Amino acid sequence: MYANKIPADIPAETWQEVTILFTWKSFPTRELAPNIKYVQLLSAGCNQILDLPLFRDTDISFFPEYLENQRMAKWVDPVSDDDTEDAVGLRVGILGYGCVGRQCARVAKAFGMDVYAYTLHERPTPESRKDDSFIEPGLGDPNGEFPSKWFFGPDQLNDFLASDLDLLVISLPGTETTRRMIAREQFKLLSKKRTYVSNVGRGSIVDTDDLVDALDQGLIRGAAIDVTEPEPLPADHKLWKCKNLILTPHCSGNSNHYYERICKILAYNLARRSRGEPLINKVDRSLGY
Amino acid sequence: MYANKIPADIPAETWQEVTILFTWKSFPTRELAPNIKYVQLLSAGCNQILDLPLFRDTDISFFPEYLENQRMAKWVDPVSDDDTEDAVGLRVGILGYGCVGRQCARVAKAFGMDVYAYTLHERPTPESRKDDSFIEPGLGDPNGEFPSKWFFGPDQLNDFLASDLDLLVISLPGTETTRRMIAREQFKLLSKKRTYVSNVGRGSIVDTDDLVDALDQGLIRGAAIDVTEPEPLPADHKLWKCKNLILTPHCSGNSNHYYERICKILAYNLARRSRGEPLINKVDRSLGY
Repeated sequence: MYANKIPADIPAETWQEVTILFTWKSFPTRELAPNIKYVQLLSAGCNQILDLPLFRDTDISFFPEYLENQRMAKWVDPVSDDDTEDAVGLRVGILGYGCVGRQCARVAKAFGMDVYAYTLHERPTPESRKDDSFIEPGLGDPNGEFPSKWFFGPDQLNDFLASDLDLLVISLPGTETTRRMIAREQFKLLSKKRTYVSNVGRGSIVDTDDLVDALDQGLIRGAAIDVTEPEPLPADHKLWKCKNLILTPHCSGNSNHYYERICKILAYNLARRSRGEPLINKVDRSLGY
Repeated sequence: MYANKIPADIPAETWQEVTILFTWKSFPTRELAPNIKYVQLLSAGCNQILDLPLFRDTDISFFPEYLENQRMAKWVDPVSDDDTEDAVGLRVGILGYGCVGRQCARVAKAFGMDVYAYTLHERPTPESRKDDSFIEPGLGDPNGEFPSKWFFGPDQLNDFLASDLDLLVISLPGTETTRRMIAREQFKLLSKKRTYVSNVGRGSIVDTDDLVDALDQGLIRGAAIDVTEPEPLPADHKLWKCKNLILTPHCSGNSNHYYERICKILAYNLARRSRGEPLINKVDRSLGY
Protein backbone atom coordinates (compact mmCIF):
# COMPACT_ATOMS: atom_id res chain seq x y z
CA MET A 1 0.00 0.00 0.00
CA TYR A 2 1.27 3.47 -0.80
CA ALA A 3 0.73 6.96 0.48
CA ASN A 4 -2.95 7.74 0.86
CA LYS A 5 -3.90 5.80 -2.27
CA ILE A 6 -5.63 2.50 -1.91
CA PRO A 7 -4.25 -0.23 -4.15
CA ALA A 8 -6.03 -0.15 -7.50
CA ASP A 9 -5.99 -3.92 -7.88
CA ILE A 10 -8.40 -4.67 -5.06
CA PRO A 11 -11.84 -5.19 -6.59
CA ALA A 12 -14.85 -3.41 -5.10
CA GLU A 13 -16.42 -6.78 -4.15
CA THR A 14 -13.42 -7.49 -1.94
CA TRP A 15 -13.76 -4.16 -0.15
CA GLN A 16 -17.43 -4.99 0.50
CA GLU A 17 -16.33 -8.00 2.50
CA VAL A 18 -13.62 -6.26 4.55
CA THR A 19 -14.45 -6.04 8.27
CA ILE A 20 -10.94 -5.54 9.66
CA LEU A 21 -8.40 -3.22 7.99
CA PHE A 22 -4.67 -3.31 8.72
CA THR A 23 -3.16 -0.16 7.23
CA TRP A 24 -0.52 2.54 7.43
CA LYS A 25 -2.11 5.48 5.69
CA SER A 26 -4.39 4.15 2.96
CA PHE A 27 -8.09 4.26 3.64
CA PRO A 28 -11.03 3.22 1.49
CA THR A 29 -14.12 5.40 1.56
CA ARG A 30 -17.07 4.44 3.75
CA GLU A 31 -19.05 3.64 0.59
CA LEU A 32 -16.36 1.35 -0.79
CA ALA A 33 -15.95 -0.59 2.46
CA PRO A 34 -19.18 -0.25 4.43
CA ASN A 35 -18.50 -3.28 6.67
CA ILE A 36 -15.23 -2.25 8.31
CA LYS A 37 -15.46 -2.68 12.08
CA TYR A 38 -11.85 -2.38 13.19
CA VAL A 39 -8.89 -0.54 11.68
CA GLN A 40 -5.42 -1.44 12.94
CA LEU A 41 -2.98 1.36 12.17
CA LEU A 42 0.65 0.54 11.52
CA SER A 43 1.96 3.75 13.06
CA ALA A 44 2.59 4.81 16.68
CA GLY A 45 1.03 8.19 16.03
CA CYS A 46 -2.17 8.43 14.05
CA ASN A 47 -1.97 11.87 12.56
CA GLN A 48 -1.51 10.62 9.02
CA ILE A 49 -5.30 10.39 9.23
CA LEU A 50 -5.26 14.13 9.77
CA ASP A 51 -3.11 14.71 6.67
CA LEU A 52 0.35 15.25 8.10
CA PRO A 53 3.43 14.77 5.85
CA LEU A 54 4.54 11.30 4.93
CA PHE A 55 7.88 9.76 5.65
CA ARG A 56 8.83 6.58 3.82
CA ASP A 57 10.64 4.94 0.89
CA THR A 58 13.93 6.45 1.93
CA ASP A 59 17.13 5.74 3.82
CA ILE A 60 18.03 5.11 7.49
CA SER A 61 21.48 5.34 8.95
CA PHE A 62 23.52 4.84 12.08
CA PHE A 63 23.55 7.69 14.63
CA PRO A 64 26.87 9.31 13.63
CA GLU A 65 25.49 9.49 10.10
CA TYR A 66 22.45 11.37 11.39
CA LEU A 67 24.79 13.95 12.90
CA GLU A 68 26.67 14.16 9.61
CA ASN A 69 23.41 14.70 7.72
CA GLN A 70 22.38 17.36 10.24
CA ARG A 71 25.66 19.19 9.63
CA MET A 72 24.84 19.18 5.92
CA ALA A 73 21.20 20.27 6.57
CA LYS A 74 20.09 17.06 4.90
CA TRP A 75 16.84 15.39 5.95
CA VAL A 76 17.29 11.74 4.95
CA ASP A 77 14.11 9.74 5.52
CA PRO A 78 14.43 6.15 6.71
CA VAL A 79 14.15 3.59 3.89
CA SER A 80 12.82 0.81 5.99
CA ASP A 81 12.33 -0.20 9.58
CA ASP A 82 14.53 -3.21 8.95
CA ASP A 83 17.63 -1.04 9.12
CA THR A 84 17.03 -0.19 12.76
CA GLU A 85 17.86 -2.95 15.20
CA ASP A 86 15.36 -3.04 18.04
CA ALA A 87 16.92 -3.95 21.40
CA VAL A 88 13.85 -5.82 22.68
CA GLY A 89 14.73 -9.50 23.00
CA LEU A 90 18.40 -9.05 22.06
CA ARG A 91 20.97 -10.55 24.39
CA VAL A 92 23.77 -8.70 26.14
CA GLY A 93 26.64 -10.54 27.75
CA ILE A 94 28.31 -8.66 30.59
CA LEU A 95 31.91 -9.70 31.03
CA GLY A 96 32.66 -8.72 34.62
CA TYR A 97 29.49 -8.39 36.68
CA GLY A 98 30.66 -5.83 39.24
CA CYS A 99 28.99 -2.51 39.98
CA VAL A 100 29.71 -1.09 36.50
CA GLY A 101 28.50 -4.22 34.70
CA ARG A 102 25.38 -4.39 36.87
CA GLN A 103 24.40 -0.83 35.99
CA CYS A 104 24.89 -1.67 32.28
CA ALA A 105 22.58 -4.65 32.89
CA ARG A 106 19.94 -2.38 34.44
CA VAL A 107 19.92 -0.10 31.41
CA ALA A 108 19.87 -3.10 29.03
CA LYS A 109 16.88 -4.56 30.90
CA ALA A 110 15.07 -1.21 30.59
CA PHE A 111 15.54 -1.57 26.82
CA GLY A 112 14.03 -5.07 26.95
CA MET A 113 17.25 -7.05 26.56
CA ASP A 114 18.11 -10.46 27.96
CA VAL A 115 21.22 -10.41 30.20
CA TYR A 116 23.95 -13.06 30.58
CA ALA A 117 26.63 -12.49 33.19
CA TYR A 118 30.23 -13.65 33.44
CA THR A 119 32.19 -13.46 36.69
CA LEU A 120 35.67 -14.63 37.59
CA HIS A 121 34.36 -16.75 40.48
CA GLU A 122 31.34 -19.01 40.65
CA ARG A 123 28.14 -17.44 41.99
CA PRO A 124 25.91 -20.44 42.64
CA THR A 125 23.72 -19.07 45.47
CA PRO A 126 21.49 -15.99 45.75
CA GLU A 127 23.80 -14.74 48.51
CA SER A 128 26.90 -15.07 46.33
CA ARG A 129 25.21 -13.10 43.54
CA LYS A 130 24.77 -9.99 45.65
CA ASP A 131 26.78 -6.89 44.92
CA ASP A 132 28.88 -6.04 47.95
CA SER A 133 30.01 -2.69 46.60
CA PHE A 134 28.47 0.76 47.00
CA ILE A 135 25.35 1.38 44.90
CA GLU A 136 23.10 4.43 44.61
CA PRO A 137 19.55 3.40 45.62
CA GLY A 138 17.54 2.11 42.67
CA LEU A 139 20.59 1.50 40.49
CA GLY A 140 22.77 -1.47 39.53
CA ASP A 141 21.62 -4.98 40.31
CA PRO A 142 22.12 -5.29 44.10
CA ASN A 143 20.78 -8.84 44.30
CA GLY A 144 22.07 -10.14 40.99
CA GLU A 145 18.55 -10.71 39.69
CA PHE A 146 18.88 -9.53 36.08
CA PRO A 147 21.00 -12.26 34.44
CA SER A 148 19.04 -15.18 33.02
CA LYS A 149 22.29 -17.15 32.88
CA TRP A 150 25.65 -16.96 34.68
CA PHE A 151 29.07 -18.12 33.51
CA PHE A 152 32.29 -18.11 35.52
CA GLY A 153 36.01 -18.74 35.37
CA PRO A 154 38.45 -19.28 32.51
CA ASP A 155 36.88 -22.63 31.54
CA GLN A 156 33.51 -21.05 30.77
CA LEU A 157 34.77 -17.91 29.05
CA ASN A 158 34.51 -19.29 25.54
CA ASP A 159 31.07 -20.82 26.18
CA PHE A 160 29.92 -17.42 27.39
CA LEU A 161 31.26 -15.70 24.27
CA ALA A 162 29.60 -18.31 22.03
CA SER A 163 26.20 -17.96 23.70
CA ASP A 164 24.58 -15.95 20.87
CA LEU A 165 25.32 -12.53 22.30
CA ASP A 166 24.12 -9.55 20.28
CA LEU A 167 26.19 -7.24 22.44
CA LEU A 168 29.22 -7.88 24.63
CA VAL A 169 29.97 -5.34 27.34
CA ILE A 170 33.43 -5.63 28.85
CA SER A 171 33.41 -4.23 32.39
CA LEU A 172 36.31 -6.12 33.91
CA PRO A 173 39.18 -4.59 35.85
CA GLY A 174 42.64 -4.46 34.28
CA THR A 175 44.68 -7.19 35.95
CA GLU A 176 47.19 -9.81 34.87
CA THR A 177 44.33 -12.34 34.69
CA THR A 178 42.19 -10.21 32.38
CA ARG A 179 45.12 -9.17 30.17
CA ARG A 180 44.28 -9.94 26.48
CA MET A 181 41.37 -12.11 27.60
CA ILE A 182 39.64 -11.08 24.37
CA ALA A 183 41.93 -11.95 21.48
CA ARG A 184 41.85 -13.73 18.10
CA GLU A 185 40.25 -16.95 19.41
CA GLN A 186 37.53 -15.03 21.25
CA PHE A 187 36.74 -12.79 18.27
CA LYS A 188 36.28 -15.96 16.24
CA LEU A 189 33.66 -17.16 18.73
CA LEU A 190 31.97 -13.75 18.63
CA SER A 191 31.88 -13.88 14.82
CA LYS A 192 29.17 -16.57 14.97
CA LYS A 193 26.59 -13.93 15.91
CA ARG A 194 28.69 -10.92 14.77
CA THR A 195 28.43 -9.66 18.35
CA TYR A 196 28.84 -5.91 18.83
CA VAL A 197 31.60 -5.23 21.38
CA SER A 198 31.77 -2.44 23.95
CA ASN A 199 34.74 -2.03 26.26
CA VAL A 200 34.30 0.25 29.28
CA GLY A 201 36.76 -1.71 31.43
CA ARG A 202 40.41 -1.39 30.51
CA GLY A 203 42.18 -1.36 27.15
CA SER A 204 44.52 -4.15 28.24
CA ILE A 205 41.66 -6.70 28.32
CA VAL A 206 41.37 -6.64 24.53
CA ASP A 207 44.22 -7.47 22.17
CA THR A 208 44.29 -4.28 20.10
CA ASP A 209 45.72 -5.87 16.92
CA ASP A 210 43.10 -8.62 17.04
CA LEU A 211 40.35 -6.03 17.55
CA VAL A 212 41.55 -4.14 14.48
CA ASP A 213 41.47 -7.38 12.46
CA ALA A 214 38.02 -8.33 13.79
CA LEU A 215 36.64 -4.95 12.75
CA ASP A 216 38.35 -4.92 9.36
CA GLN A 217 37.27 -8.48 8.55
CA GLY A 218 33.73 -7.85 9.81
CA LEU A 219 33.94 -10.65 12.40
CA ILE A 220 32.04 -8.33 14.72
CA ARG A 221 29.34 -5.81 13.73
CA GLY A 222 31.23 -3.00 15.35
CA ALA A 223 32.70 -1.77 18.58
CA ALA A 224 32.30 1.13 20.96
CA ILE A 225 35.34 1.42 23.15
CA ASP A 226 36.12 3.96 25.82
CA VAL A 227 39.49 2.45 26.70
CA THR A 228 42.43 1.49 24.53
CA GLU A 229 45.91 0.12 24.81
CA PRO A 230 47.93 2.29 24.76
CA GLU A 231 46.28 5.39 26.22
CA PRO A 232 46.25 8.04 24.96
CA LEU A 233 46.00 6.37 21.57
CA PRO A 234 48.67 7.94 19.28
CA ALA A 235 47.31 9.91 16.31
CA ASP A 236 48.90 7.50 13.82
CA HIS A 237 47.48 4.32 15.43
CA LYS A 238 45.60 2.08 12.98
CA LEU A 239 42.66 1.73 15.39
CA TRP A 240 41.52 5.27 14.55
CA LYS A 241 40.85 4.22 10.96
CA CYS A 242 38.81 1.10 11.70
CA LYS A 243 35.32 0.88 10.30
CA ASN A 244 32.24 0.51 12.52
CA LEU A 245 34.11 1.84 15.53
CA ILE A 246 33.14 4.47 18.08
CA LEU A 247 36.11 5.51 20.19
CA THR A 248 35.92 7.82 23.20
CA PRO A 249 38.84 8.97 25.39
CA HIS A 250 38.32 7.04 28.65
CA CYS A 251 35.48 9.28 29.77
CA SER A 252 32.58 6.89 30.37
CA GLY A 253 33.12 6.94 34.12
CA ASN A 254 33.09 10.73 34.33
CA SER A 255 30.49 12.44 36.41
CA ASN A 256 30.04 15.77 38.12
CA HIS A 257 28.98 13.73 41.17
CA TYR A 258 32.07 11.54 41.12
CA TYR A 259 33.75 13.03 44.18
CA GLU A 260 30.50 13.43 46.10
CA ARG A 261 29.81 9.71 45.54
CA ILE A 262 33.28 8.65 46.61
CA CYS A 263 32.85 10.73 49.74
CA LYS A 264 29.64 8.77 50.39
CA ILE A 265 31.64 5.52 50.16
CA LEU A 266 34.27 6.96 52.45
CA ALA A 267 31.66 8.07 55.02
CA TYR A 268 29.92 4.70 54.77
CA ASN A 269 33.18 2.83 55.29
CA LEU A 270 34.24 5.04 58.19
CA ALA A 271 30.92 4.28 59.89
CA ARG A 272 31.42 0.54 59.24
CA ARG A 273 34.96 0.73 60.50
CA SER A 274 33.90 2.50 63.68
CA ARG A 275 31.46 -0.37 64.31
CA GLY A 276 34.18 -2.92 63.56
CA GLU A 277 32.38 -4.13 60.40
CA PRO A 278 34.19 -5.20 57.22
CA LEU A 279 34.69 -2.46 54.62
CA ILE A 280 33.07 -2.45 51.16
CA ASN A 281 34.63 -1.73 47.73
CA LYS A 282 37.89 -3.22 48.97
CA VAL A 283 40.82 -3.90 46.65
CA ASP A 284 41.89 -7.54 47.00
CA ARG A 285 45.71 -7.67 46.97
CA SER A 286 45.88 -11.13 45.43
CA LEU A 287 43.28 -10.46 42.72
CA GLY A 288 44.54 -6.95 41.97
CA TYR A 289 41.09 -5.32 41.93
CA MET B 1 47.45 15.73 44.71
CA TYR B 2 49.13 15.04 41.39
CA ALA B 3 50.24 12.06 39.42
CA ASN B 4 52.11 9.57 41.54
CA LYS B 5 53.92 12.24 43.54
CA ILE B 6 52.86 12.92 47.08
CA PRO B 7 52.48 16.62 47.89
CA ALA B 8 55.82 18.00 49.07
CA ASP B 9 54.24 20.32 51.62
CA ILE B 10 52.96 17.59 53.95
CA PRO B 11 55.45 17.24 56.80
CA ALA B 12 56.66 13.78 57.79
CA GLU B 13 55.07 14.16 61.25
CA THR B 14 51.68 14.50 59.59
CA TRP B 15 52.17 11.31 57.57
CA GLN B 16 53.04 9.51 60.82
CA GLU B 17 49.58 10.32 62.14
CA VAL B 18 47.65 9.30 59.00
CA THR B 19 45.43 6.25 59.50
CA ILE B 20 43.00 6.76 56.62
CA LEU B 21 44.14 7.90 53.17
CA PHE B 22 41.80 9.29 50.51
CA THR B 23 43.71 9.37 47.23
CA TRP B 24 43.65 9.09 43.47
CA LYS B 25 47.13 7.93 42.58
CA SER B 26 49.53 9.36 45.13
CA PHE B 27 50.86 6.99 47.74
CA PRO B 28 53.32 7.56 50.55
CA THR B 29 55.80 4.80 51.34
CA ARG B 30 55.13 2.38 54.18
CA GLU B 31 57.99 4.01 56.11
CA LEU B 32 56.60 7.51 55.69
CA ALA B 33 53.06 6.53 56.77
CA PRO B 34 53.32 3.41 58.89
CA ASN B 35 49.91 3.84 60.53
CA ILE B 36 47.64 3.79 57.47
CA LYS B 37 44.79 1.32 57.99
CA TYR B 38 42.41 2.20 55.15
CA VAL B 39 43.01 3.68 51.70
CA GLN B 40 40.00 5.02 49.82
CA LEU B 41 40.76 5.26 46.11
CA LEU B 42 39.09 7.96 44.04
CA SER B 43 38.89 5.81 40.90
CA ALA B 44 36.47 3.08 39.79
CA GLY B 45 39.35 0.95 38.60
CA CYS B 46 42.45 0.61 40.72
CA ASN B 47 45.09 -0.11 38.13
CA GLN B 48 46.82 3.22 38.61
CA ILE B 49 48.44 1.29 41.46
CA LEU B 50 49.76 -1.03 38.79
CA ASP B 51 51.26 1.85 36.79
CA LEU B 52 48.74 2.37 33.97
CA PRO B 53 48.69 5.70 32.05
CA LEU B 54 47.10 8.75 33.62
CA PHE B 55 44.20 10.71 32.27
CA ARG B 56 43.56 14.18 33.66
CA ASP B 57 44.05 17.97 33.37
CA THR B 58 42.46 18.00 29.95
CA ASP B 59 39.18 18.61 28.13
CA ILE B 60 35.80 16.81 28.05
CA SER B 61 33.21 17.35 25.41
CA PHE B 62 29.71 16.44 24.34
CA PHE B 63 29.25 13.19 22.40
CA PRO B 64 29.20 14.65 18.85
CA GLU B 65 32.53 16.30 19.69
CA TYR B 66 33.95 12.91 20.64
CA LEU B 67 32.99 11.62 17.20
CA GLU B 68 34.59 14.68 15.61
CA ASN B 69 37.80 14.07 17.58
CA GLN B 70 37.73 10.40 16.58
CA ARG B 71 37.50 11.44 12.91
CA MET B 72 40.60 13.58 13.44
CA ALA B 73 42.39 10.76 15.33
CA LYS B 74 42.57 13.08 18.33
CA TRP B 75 42.56 11.68 21.86
CA VAL B 76 41.31 14.54 24.03
CA ASP B 77 41.45 13.67 27.71
CA PRO B 78 38.67 14.96 29.96
CA VAL B 79 39.59 18.14 31.87
CA SER B 80 37.35 17.55 34.80
CA ASP B 81 34.47 15.40 35.91
CA ASP B 82 32.42 18.54 36.35
CA ASP B 83 31.88 18.77 32.61
CA THR B 84 29.90 15.52 32.56
CA GLU B 85 26.37 15.76 33.89
CA ASP B 86 25.45 12.65 35.81
CA ALA B 87 21.80 11.63 35.36
CA VAL B 88 21.42 10.26 38.89
CA GLY B 89 18.96 12.46 40.76
CA LEU B 90 18.11 14.64 37.76
CA ARG B 91 14.44 15.12 36.94
CA VAL B 92 12.73 14.30 33.67
CA GLY B 93 9.26 15.59 32.87
CA ILE B 94 7.32 13.44 30.43
CA LEU B 95 4.76 15.46 28.52
CA GLY B 96 2.27 12.83 27.39
CA TYR B 97 2.46 9.68 29.52
CA GLY B 98 1.32 7.12 26.97
CA CYS B 99 3.18 4.00 25.92
CA VAL B 100 6.07 5.98 24.35
CA GLY B 101 6.42 8.30 27.34
CA ARG B 102 6.26 5.38 29.77
CA GLN B 103 9.11 3.59 28.02
CA CYS B 104 11.16 6.83 28.19
CA ALA B 105 10.37 6.89 31.93
CA ARG B 106 11.61 3.31 32.31
CA VAL B 107 14.95 4.15 30.72
CA ALA B 108 15.24 7.38 32.75
CA LYS B 109 14.60 5.43 35.97
CA ALA B 110 17.33 2.94 34.99
CA PHE B 111 19.67 5.94 34.81
CA GLY B 112 18.60 7.02 38.32
CA MET B 113 16.36 9.93 37.31
CA ASP B 114 13.26 11.24 39.05
CA VAL B 115 10.16 11.19 36.80
CA TYR B 116 7.27 13.69 36.61
CA ALA B 117 4.36 12.90 34.32
CA TYR B 118 1.89 15.11 32.48
CA THR B 119 -1.33 13.75 30.99
CA LEU B 120 -4.22 15.46 29.29
CA HIS B 121 -6.74 13.99 31.75
CA GLU B 122 -6.52 13.62 35.51
CA ARG B 123 -5.18 10.28 36.79
CA PRO B 124 -6.05 10.36 40.47
CA THR B 125 -6.37 6.63 41.19
CA PRO B 126 -4.00 3.68 40.72
CA GLU B 127 -6.54 2.24 38.25
CA SER B 128 -6.58 5.43 36.15
CA ARG B 129 -2.78 5.46 36.00
CA LYS B 130 -2.58 2.11 34.25
CA ASP B 131 -1.50 1.92 30.63
CA ASP B 132 -4.28 0.41 28.57
CA SER B 133 -2.19 0.07 25.42
CA PHE B 134 -0.05 -2.82 24.20
CA ILE B 135 3.27 -3.23 26.01
CA GLU B 136 6.04 -5.79 25.57
CA PRO B 137 6.51 -7.65 28.88
CA GLY B 138 8.96 -5.91 31.18
CA LEU B 139 8.80 -2.60 29.32
CA GLY B 140 7.02 0.72 29.74
CA ASP B 141 5.26 1.51 33.00
CA PRO B 142 2.12 -0.66 32.91
CA ASN B 143 0.87 0.47 36.32
CA GLY B 144 2.04 4.07 36.21
CA GLU B 145 4.38 3.55 39.14
CA PHE B 146 7.42 5.53 38.01
CA PRO B 147 6.28 9.16 38.31
CA SER B 148 6.83 10.76 41.70
CA LYS B 149 4.40 13.53 40.67
CA TRP B 150 1.57 13.83 38.13
CA PHE B 151 0.21 16.92 36.41
CA PHE B 152 -2.78 17.12 34.10
CA GLY B 153 -4.78 19.37 31.82
CA PRO B 154 -4.13 22.82 30.34
CA ASP B 155 -4.30 24.53 33.76
CA GLN B 156 -1.35 22.56 35.11
CA LEU B 157 0.85 22.64 32.01
CA ASN B 158 2.83 25.69 33.08
CA ASP B 159 3.28 24.39 36.64
CA PHE B 160 4.60 21.16 35.17
CA LEU B 161 7.08 23.02 32.95
CA ALA B 162 8.22 25.15 35.89
CA SER B 163 8.81 22.15 38.18
CA ASP B 164 12.62 22.22 37.93
CA LEU B 165 12.91 19.75 35.08
CA ASP B 166 16.41 18.94 33.89
CA LEU B 167 14.98 17.22 30.84
CA LEU B 168 11.61 17.55 29.12
CA VAL B 169 10.52 14.67 26.88
CA ILE B 170 7.62 15.49 24.58
CA SER B 171 5.75 12.31 23.72
CA LEU B 172 2.32 13.70 22.92
CA PRO B 173 0.27 12.94 19.83
CA GLY B 174 -0.16 15.63 17.18
CA THR B 175 -3.69 16.98 17.58
CA GLU B 176 -5.42 20.35 17.52
CA THR B 177 -5.14 20.43 21.35
CA THR B 178 -1.39 19.83 21.39
CA ARG B 179 -0.67 22.20 18.49
CA ARG B 180 2.03 24.73 19.55
CA MET B 181 1.55 23.72 23.18
CA ILE B 182 5.24 24.55 23.68
CA ALA B 183 5.82 28.11 22.54
CA ARG B 184 7.46 31.35 23.75
CA GLU B 185 5.68 31.42 27.15
CA GLN B 186 6.59 27.80 27.86
CA PHE B 187 10.25 28.22 26.84
CA LYS B 188 10.39 31.12 29.31
CA LEU B 189 9.25 28.77 32.09
CA LEU B 190 11.80 26.17 30.99
CA SER B 191 14.56 28.81 31.06
CA LYS B 192 14.44 28.85 34.89
CA LYS B 193 16.27 25.50 34.99
CA ARG B 194 17.56 25.70 31.37
CA THR B 195 15.69 22.43 30.77
CA TYR B 196 16.99 20.27 27.92
CA VAL B 197 14.13 19.50 25.50
CA SER B 198 13.56 16.32 23.51
CA ASN B 199 10.64 15.97 21.11
CA VAL B 200 9.78 12.45 19.95
CA GLY B 201 6.08 13.23 19.53
CA ARG B 202 5.16 15.47 16.62
CA GLY B 203 6.77 18.61 15.23
CA SER B 204 3.47 20.52 15.45
CA ILE B 205 3.55 20.44 19.29
CA VAL B 206 6.46 22.88 19.39
CA ASP B 207 6.41 26.33 17.83
CA THR B 208 9.44 26.07 15.55
CA ASP B 209 10.29 29.80 15.54
CA ASP B 210 10.13 29.92 19.32
CA LEU B 211 12.33 26.82 19.57
CA VAL B 212 14.93 28.50 17.35
CA ASP B 213 14.86 31.60 19.57
CA ALA B 214 15.06 29.51 22.77
CA LEU B 215 18.14 27.71 21.45
CA ASP B 216 19.81 30.85 20.12
CA GLN B 217 19.18 32.80 23.33
CA GLY B 218 20.26 29.88 25.49
CA LEU B 219 16.91 29.72 27.32
CA ILE B 220 17.26 25.94 27.16
CA ARG B 221 20.51 23.96 27.39
CA GLY B 222 19.81 22.24 24.13
CA ALA B 223 17.34 20.10 22.26
CA ALA B 224 17.23 16.69 20.62
CA ILE B 225 14.32 16.51 18.26
CA ASP B 226 13.24 13.69 16.01
CA VAL B 227 10.24 15.56 14.60
CA THR B 228 9.95 18.99 13.04
CA GLU B 229 7.41 21.25 11.45
CA PRO B 230 7.53 21.08 8.50
CA GLU B 231 8.78 17.60 7.59
CA PRO B 232 11.02 17.01 5.79
CA LEU B 233 12.80 20.12 7.04
CA PRO B 234 13.96 22.14 3.99
CA ALA B 235 17.73 22.45 3.57
CA ASP B 236 17.59 26.23 4.02
CA HIS B 237 15.55 26.15 7.25
CA LYS B 238 17.13 28.13 10.11
CA LEU B 239 16.60 25.23 12.55
CA TRP B 240 19.51 23.32 10.95
CA LYS B 241 21.93 26.04 12.07
CA CYS B 242 20.81 26.24 15.69
CA LYS B 243 23.42 25.61 18.36
CA ASN B 244 23.09 22.80 20.91
CA LEU B 245 20.65 20.92 18.71
CA ILE B 246 20.55 17.27 17.67
CA LEU B 247 18.10 16.71 14.84
CA THR B 248 17.13 13.30 13.45
CA PRO B 249 14.70 12.60 10.57
CA HIS B 250 11.64 11.15 12.35
CA CYS B 251 13.30 7.79 12.92
CA SER B 252 13.07 7.26 16.69
CA GLY B 253 10.13 4.92 16.32
CA ASN B 254 11.86 2.72 13.76
CA SER B 255 12.42 -0.90 14.53
CA ASN B 256 13.05 -4.09 12.62
CA HIS B 257 10.35 -5.59 14.87
CA TYR B 258 7.83 -2.87 14.11
CA TYR B 259 5.54 -4.95 11.91
CA GLU B 260 5.90 -8.05 14.05
CA ARG B 261 4.82 -6.00 17.07
CA ILE B 262 1.87 -4.47 15.29
CA CYS B 263 0.80 -7.95 14.26
CA LYS B 264 0.91 -8.91 17.94
CA ILE B 265 -1.45 -6.01 18.69
CA LEU B 266 -3.68 -7.08 15.82
CA ALA B 267 -3.75 -10.71 17.02
CA TYR B 268 -4.40 -9.58 20.59
CA ASN B 269 -7.25 -7.32 19.50
CA LEU B 270 -8.77 -9.98 17.26
CA ALA B 271 -8.80 -12.35 20.23
CA ARG B 272 -10.39 -9.66 22.41
CA ARG B 273 -12.92 -8.89 19.70
CA SER B 274 -13.85 -12.57 19.34
CA ARG B 275 -14.55 -12.63 23.08
CA GLY B 276 -16.56 -9.40 22.83
CA GLU B 277 -14.02 -7.47 24.93
CA PRO B 278 -13.07 -3.83 24.31
CA LEU B 279 -10.09 -3.28 22.01
CA ILE B 280 -6.80 -1.70 23.11
CA ASN B 281 -4.69 1.05 21.44
CA LYS B 282 -7.90 2.58 20.11
CA VAL B 283 -7.95 5.97 18.41
CA ASP B 284 -10.50 8.21 20.12
CA ARG B 285 -12.38 10.17 17.44
CA SER B 286 -13.06 13.18 19.64
CA LEU B 287 -9.52 13.42 21.02
CA GLY B 288 -7.87 12.66 17.71
CA TYR B 289 -5.36 10.12 19.13
